[in-house]
Amino acid sequence: MKLGKVIGRVISTRKIASFEGLKLLLVQPLDENRNPSGDAFVAADTIQSGVGELIYYETSKEAGRVLVNTMNPVDAAIMGIVDELYIDKRP
Amino acid sequence: MKLGKVIGRVISTRKIASFEGLKLLLVQPLDENRNPSGDAFVAADTIQSGVGELIYYETSKEAGRVLVNTMNPVDAAIMGIVDELYIDKRP
Amino acid sequence: MKLGKVIGRVISTRKIASFEGLKLLLVQPLDENRNPSGDAFVAADTIQSGVGELIYYETSKEAGRVLVNTMNPVDAAIMGIVDELYIDKRP
Amino acid sequence: MKLGKVIGRVISTRKIASFEGLKLLLVQPLDENRNPSGDAFVAADTIQSGVGELIYYETSKEAGRVLVNTMNPVDAAIMGIVDELYIDKRP
Amino acid sequence: MKLGKVIGRVISTRKIASFEGLKLLLVQPLDENRNPSGDAFVAADTIQSGVGELIYYETSKEAGRVLVNTMNPVDAAIMGIVDELYIDKRP
Repeated sequence: MKLGKVIGRVISTRKIASFEGLKLLLVQPLDENRNPSGDAFVAADTIQSGVGELIYYETSKEAGRVLVNTMNPVDAAIMGIVDELYIDKRP
Repeated sequence: MKLGKVIGRVISTRKIASFEGLKLLLVQPLDENRNPSGDAFVAADTIQSGVGELIYYETSKEAGRVLVNTMNPVDAAIMGIVDELYIDKRP
Repeated sequence: MKLGKVIGRVISTRKIASFEGLKLLLVQPLDENRNPSGDAFVAADTIQSGVGELIYYETSKEAGRVLVNTMNPVDAAIMGIVDELYIDKRP
Repeated sequence: MKLGKVIGRVISTRKIASFEGLKLLLVQPLDENRNPSGDAFVAADTIQSGVGELIYYETSKEAGRVLVNTMNPVDAAIMGIVDELYIDKRP
Repeated sequence: MKLGKVIGRVISTRKIASFEGLKLLLVQPLDENRNPSGDAFVAADTIQSGVGELIYYETSKEAGRVLVNTMNPVDAAIMGIVDELYIDKRP
């Protein structure tokens, strides 16, 4: 899983049939210091996340398994909200 | 899913048998500000997208599931058209 | 699928058993302007491509499905030859 | 598998149901000289690793197979602790 | 498949159970000119490769299929030794 932040929403009317009713969020990948790292992408919401929340996500075939329709071909989903990050970089 | 724009078409006569009849589009990946990010690639059209449209796509095994022949080994497909992007980067 | 050009061949005697008889080509990834982009890699030939041809390929689990032995663990295969690329980058 | 170091922990209360009870570690990818390479990410702990340990991990569908619930959609897991690395770069 | 060179070995005592008995090699990815490209990683040996050998490898779910235990969650394996590379970059 990777760290990210919800930064927006995607509105889409014309789409594949199984995406009807799916809430699509825009997610900015972050490094462990919460700095942006790479391009934002579109993820399916699974846990009612909102803009500004620090989350961890997956971008793979496994992402679809957390949806009600587990066969939905979603390749990016939010798995959880980060409450706290403990970092200890001692060598 | 990632953001992209349809920028062209690929004409291909000699190809694997299951690709017969598939419309192949050239897609330019975009970041959330709609700037190009990375190389264009070839995606199967699934929702009758046209040149210039802002779309979101997948590039994984799941992409093939949206085709009529779900076992077709396509690894990139357009999932939907973006009507609007709401971005809110407040910290 | 991504764009590439066949730039050579790989000769390999000692290999996993299921690769016997497979023709292994060296492919250079290209961007949409046909400029090299990234390192060349080894792909299974599926459509009798030759050196210098512009092709599109896949590098994923799906690649193996185009082989006679669909369970062969090949992760890169050529899917088709590009006859023409139509590119239209109007905004 | 890739080399990494455990550099922290992620505390997460709101998450998908199957992640309940999973210990989530923050892992810094390393090159073969043990220098950081790329962003830290979130991995499931499988072998009771602790902060500072040199490990090797996977970030793919296979990662979930090492969990008790092998269908858990985890895409990153620690596979083992590195005791020693022998490197020999002679040409 | 990608080109690489075996540059070492990984010794690991504490690991997931199914990795017992697996020989873990350190592999340096190479471009087609045999120059290093990216970080070295850990691959399962499948064809008794030794340090210094030019090989081609896979880093995906398919890698595990070449092992005796095909369900072993290995995501990187050596598929063959390169005897010769013929490169022809004529335009």
